[in-house]
Amino acid sequence: MLKGFVVPRSPLGAAALTPPPPWHFAGDVLAVEYWSDPDLSTDVLPEGIEPDAKTKGHSVAIFMDYQFTARNEEHLDPGRYQSRGFLVLLDAIWQGAPVAWCPYAYVDNDAALIRGWVCGYPEKLGSVHQTRTFAASPPLANNSRFAACVSAHGQLLAQAHITLRERSDDLAGLLDRPIVTRRYFPRFSAGGRQTSAVDELVRPISENMVFTNIWIGEGALAFPETLGEELDILAPIKVGRGVRCSFSYSIADCAILSDLTV
Amino acid sequence: MLKGFVVPRSPLGAAALTPPPPWHFAGDVLAVEYWSDPDLSTDVLPEGIEPDAKTKGHSVAIFMDYQFTARNEEHLDPGRYQSRGFLVLLDAIWQGAPVAWCPYAYVDNDAALIRGWVCGYPEKLGSVHQTRTFAASPPLANNSRFAACVSAHGQLLAQAHITLRERSDDLAGLLDRPIVTRRYFPRFSAGGRQTSAVDELVRPISENMVFTNIWIGEGALAFPETLGEELDILAPIKVGRGVRCSFSYSIADCAILSDLTV
Amino acid sequence: MLKGFVVPRSPLGAAALTPPPPWHFAGDVLAVEYWSDPDLSTDVLPEGIEPDAKTKGHSVAIFMDYQFTARNEEHLDPGRYQSRGFLVLLDAIWQGAPVAWCPYAYVDNDAALIRGWVCGYPEKLGSVHQTRTFAASPPLANNSRFAACVSAHGQLLAQAHITLRERSDDLAGLLDRPIVTRRYFPRFSAGGRQTSAVDELVRPISENMVFTNIWIGEGALAFPETLGEELDILAPIKVGRGVRCSFSYSIADCAILSDLTV
Amino acid sequence: MLKGFVVPRSPLGAAALTPPPPWHFAGDVLAVEYWSDPDLSTDVLPEGIEPDAKTKGHSVAIFMDYQFTARNEEHLDPGRYQSRGFLVLLDAIWQGAPVAWCPYAYVDNDAALIRGWVCGYPEKLGSVHQTRTFAASPPLANNSRFAACVSAHGQLLAQAHITLRERSDDLAGLLDRPIVTRRYFPRFSAGGRQTSAVDELVRPISENMVFTNIWIGEGALAFPETLGEELDILAPIKVGRGVRCSFSYSIADCAILSDLTV
Repeated sequence: MLKGFVVPRSPLGAAALTPPPPWHFAGDVLAVEYWSDPDLSTDVLPEGIEPDAKTKGHSVAIFMDYQFTARNEEHLDPGRYQSRGFLVLLDAIWQGAPVAWCPYAYVDNDAALIRGWVCGYPEKLGSVHQTRTFAASPPLANNSRFAACVSAHGQLLAQAHITLRERSDDLAGLLDRPIVTRRYFPRFSAGGRQTSAVDELVRPISENMVFTNIWIGEGALAFPETLGEELDILAPIKVGRGVRCSFSYSIADCAILSDLTV
Repeated sequence: MLKGFVVPRSPLGAAALTPPPPWHFAGDVLAVEYWSDPDLSTDVLPEGIEPDAKTKGHSVAIFMDYQFTARNEEHLDPGRYQSRGFLVLLDAIWQGAPVAWCPYAYVDNDAALIRGWVCGYPEKLGSVHQTRTFAASPPLANNSRFAACVSAHGQLLAQAHITLRERSDDLAGLLDRPIVTRRYFPRFSAGGRQTSAVDELVRPISENMVFTNIWIGEGALAFPETLGEELDILAPIKVGRGVRCSFSYSIADCAILSDLTV
Repeated sequence: MLKGFVVPRSPLGAAALTPPPPWHFAGDVLAVEYWSDPDLSTDVLPEGIEPDAKTKGHSVAIFMDYQFTARNEEHLDPGRYQSRGFLVLLDAIWQGAPVAWCPYAYVDNDAALIRGWVCGYPEKLGSVHQTRTFAASPPLANNSRFAACVSAHGQLLAQAHITLRERSDDLAGLLDRPIVTRRYFPRFSAGGRQTSAVDELVRPISENMVFTNIWIGEGALAFPETLGEELDILAPIKVGRGVRCSFSYSIADCAILSDLTV
Repeated sequence: MLKGFVVPRSPLGAAALTPPPPWHFAGDVLAVEYWSDPDLSTDVLPEGIEPDAKTKGHSVAIFMDYQFTARNEEHLDPGRYQSRGFLVLLDAIWQGAPVAWCPYAYVDNDAALIRGWVCGYPEKLGSVHQTRTFAASPPLANNSRFAACVSAHGQLLAQAHITLRERSDDLAGLLDRPIVTRRYFPRFSAGGRQTSAVDELVRPISENMVFTNIWIGEGALAFPETLGEELDILAPIKVGRGVRCSFSYSIADCAILSDLTV
């Protein structure tokens, strides 16, 4: 009997790319709010998701540096279960309610890649870095500066800078929308390829979400032109606040919003 | 309308991890035939695949160094579309017929990873290397030596050495079985997780298969003990021939053998 | 006029692998104290450095995860100026005084590699990971567990585990010896190769050294056998305390202890 | 007695980053000839090297994909001793004679990095890729296309395309100048840092140089703008021929042209 939440399924279930949920994450975030051209960003929305006419292309670019664990002290395997990731979230509407849609996402290892796919994030491999602060670093303060970048296949995809201004008790309206994603897996046989094997809109359900050490300031953000990627089509036409914070949360379930396979 | 054979689906279809089939491959192979303990290797077979009692654990460890292209000169994007991979194929029986089953596979980039998954290979990321020969190198000859290795997350998974003996017109019974794989993608919602979203046995259909520059000799092969992998359970108890050759082939379709989702 | 502290020297001096000192570091450390076989560890000492007969092979294995900056906000280029490193320090005696000698060191990028060489650390590239803790993680406590590992060229070189026991105001006698290193650069011309171009024992001078969030507990440490490395010859025959702490310090100078080029 | 041509020097001499010369290389090259702005390229020449007024910024951008070996079958350790590299060579004059000067060079592993430095190439780590051809690929022909790229720290530094036109018996005047490099290693002690420890112009001496499978055609080449690099200052203002060939050669010595340390 083969075991494992994902491939490779194996006799002991130890070889699988990721253990089954619940999954627990803790890390640091650098995020910059921005507006992309709403005429262009509308094109990244799937069937059933509408643009948010009120916020007009409002988005957040998020760089994460985090550690994962599940039931078996996976944090003691740091080479496998730490990750750095980047994603963008675009304001959108699902059945009349505000949501955040993830068109593009990048992570730097295979365990994070498959966790993303299984939850509906369209992950590719990327190299992601962000300025850090340590217990022995100067304390965060007005004017502290952070930077972050993501590249894939040797091309710079996004570059962010944040200048902290003040500590905040909350995220001030950022990162407060439920995220909607699309679980997608194609068919391969030539005769069946006009439809996909899996295509469902889902809402991953986060639990025990904690944001702490929140600092808000000014952001700068650029998505340089690249080949073989389309992130640059969503390039900022206006940039807003920058945020730096730490977070932890768990994920163990998702709500299935609709099945798009038909 | 979002386009793309796989994620991320995007307005232009240029961001997807891999273009749609047909897929064309050309590269070099180092392969070592071996026998694993049949009492143990039986455990990696899924429902519907039986051990091959006649060959008793006979397997091949394959290291590949190759280039991919599809319809748009993808070979001109070498950072994205070259790859090095490792897999093992175990002799097995499907409905009375001899097949080769792939329990474990590793590649070194995300495009190859998803191509593997879509075809049913249970790919993980690994770092794979093999000795090469160039047009300006000494010609292959009796006693020419090659080595190959694969590691993942900083652990050595397999190490092979081959000493060439003589050129051959064919692969002498190696790599001649149809490969059977398992396309697998889990559900994520807590209520549905006891079954998978995709679980089908398939036979990828290769076309225009060419093997050339075939040399056959002696092999050596080891699968060191590792944590978080189970390849070492299939470690060689006996090692046979080693092969070095070049190959090209295309893949555009698969036959669906059975649906295991029920 | 070409500029740059190191290669490549260039018109603007911006291309050099690292800016000139002073260099400032901040990061986290996991360290495990251990004893190697003194009959073997003596062999890694250069001329002029003696074994410490009192401590008999006492050593520390150190995993670092840190950020670098110099005069130009290099911390805002995190892909280039963050690094993870591993080194071992062996108790030794120089001119009658206790020192720590560094026989082997690994880092994960080129800027850190050359900084190490210039200071006399014999750096190779490696992949280094350690368990982290974030502001939103559970606070450190008795029984908190950390792990760290280093690999190079796909081989695991060292693996450590630490179980924290109690917070400490100081490092309790660990990491308190001045470090002695050897700056070494060979000649290349065939006629001159019996001597080196640079070969000097130095003592890098650290300033503003801060250790904070110090926790001390139990350590476990293994140096698996590897090919093409000799770290395993220094494998622990006994393991002592484990430490986790954060640090910051600067380095701007070194004392030259002796010239070994003659 | 510690052994090793370079660091880390060790009891057995097996840990050193590279074995001593003679060094043997075999591989493939993609090269594009181009002209940079001679007013700018003059600035990358060190004392004692003059611009070549006759060729006015004529240069070659070279992408290499190669295997290294020395005395101990290092080609059987492919993870450590294969490498992909990129360098530019600028026409220049030394003491009245035409030479090629290497201002910038990139390789993808530490063994190649230190070999470069020891020979005077100012190597940094980069990720280098080039289109390949295999024994089972279509034969090279008029209109065959190749591409190559190099990136470092997630930034694209150079991108080349070559369209083959015809096979050639020789390199048609490309890559025929002796290369001059600068071995450079700084001092570190604050008091001595105004001079370097090693600073010599050298001419690496190649032996048994073979070029084969030479194809010549048209080239395209771009050096995009980057931060922390100065290659883009040497960007092509005109592009010439493109070449694809295989090569092998050995290097065991260098001629010291002048000592610049004073």
